[in-house]
Amino acid sequence: MAKNTIISEKQVADMRVFTVSEVELDKSGRRVHHSIIRFCGTASILAITKEGKILLEKQYRTPIDRWIYEIPAGKIDKGEDPTHCIIRELEEETGYRPIKIKKTFEAYTSCGCSDEYMHYFTALVEKIPEGERKLFPEIDEDLEILEVTPEEAWKMIEEKQIVDAKSIMLITAFKAGLAGFEK
Amino acid sequence: MAKNTIISEKQVADMRVFTVSEVELDKSGRRVHHSIIRFCGTASILAITKEGKILLEKQYRTPIDRWIYEIPAGKIDKGEDPTHCIIRELEEETGYRPIKIKKTFEAYTSCGCSDEYMHYFTALVEKIPEGERKLFPEIDEDLEILEVTPEEAWKMIEEKQIVDAKSIMLITAFKAGLAGFEK
Repeated sequence: MAKNTIISEKQVADMRVFTVSEVELDKSGRRVHHSIIRFCGTASILAITKEGKILLEKQYRTPIDRWIYEIPAGKIDKGEDPTHCIIRELEEETGYRPIKIKKTFEAYTSCGCSDEYMHYFTALVEKIPEGERKLFPEIDEDLEILEVTPEEAWKMIEEKQIVDAKSIMLITAFKAGLAGFEK
Repeated sequence: MAKNTIISEKQVADMRVFTVSEVELDKSGRRVHHSIIRFCGTASILAITKEGKILLEKQYRTPIDRWIYEIPAGKIDKGEDPTHCIIRELEEETGYRPIKIKKTFEAYTSCGCSDEYMHYFTALVEKIPEGERKLFPEIDEDLEILEVTPEEAWKMIEEKQIVDAKSIMLITAFKAGLAGFEK
């Protein structure tokens, strides 16, 4: 196997949410250059209500210029615990909180070009009582929350209405009885 | 719901494999800016041998500066059919070719920051006879091909030896009997 050693890394662009670098690599004596994206850690959650419904968000995403169905997710603040992050995101975005929560997977989302590392959770959730909620004011116009049955969610995947990787990953695990919260 | 209209897009960096843009968005009259990554289409494949083994690649990935277990995958050339792309990648990287092949999923890998759209395949595969193979010369030093049982693959996910999103997605679907090639 080749021995790979990073010789230098030069930041080309700082976009705040992510940075772009040009890396020089020594590959067993041969010099090669790779362009890479440095991203923060992220977390996502398959949230199941007491009635057995899956929480989905419909939201506009600028990179693809379209509305898309996704499970709740967000960026991990520097030094933040992934579980703390995803509970915060879930509560802010949906008005639900976990009764039980479990890490299902951890993975690089696109390791060929980016170092984004996502923590994937599954949880049983309940509505936060009115008055205790901390929804962000901008949520109302940008996010629509839907509740669908696991069967409906699977149908949405088959019909390409759900085309978001993290959502497919956790819905598939749940359908397969691998997420740990199936009946 | 907010009405989102892209007003302008300014390319900030061209890294060849991907580009980075600053997008100005009109969100129901309010102007916001988002940084986005434009990537090509990609394809990946869960390849099952006649013996029921899953093909895994162990390869070095610069963005995370480590060796990682992954299913075969690659970038779709401009205008290329995704199925053609993944068969080409599979043959070049592993020396196997599909006997039967099926699209399992389609998804954006990280739609919050990138427009990368991946086509996920599952296939029954066979070894290409010696002499007919077109392996790339650089493959040998950068890629190690492993064959594992579905049970071993699942254990590797549970033990965080497999931490690659596309691989987890297709192995989970296969384990769940959802990929269409289970016994």
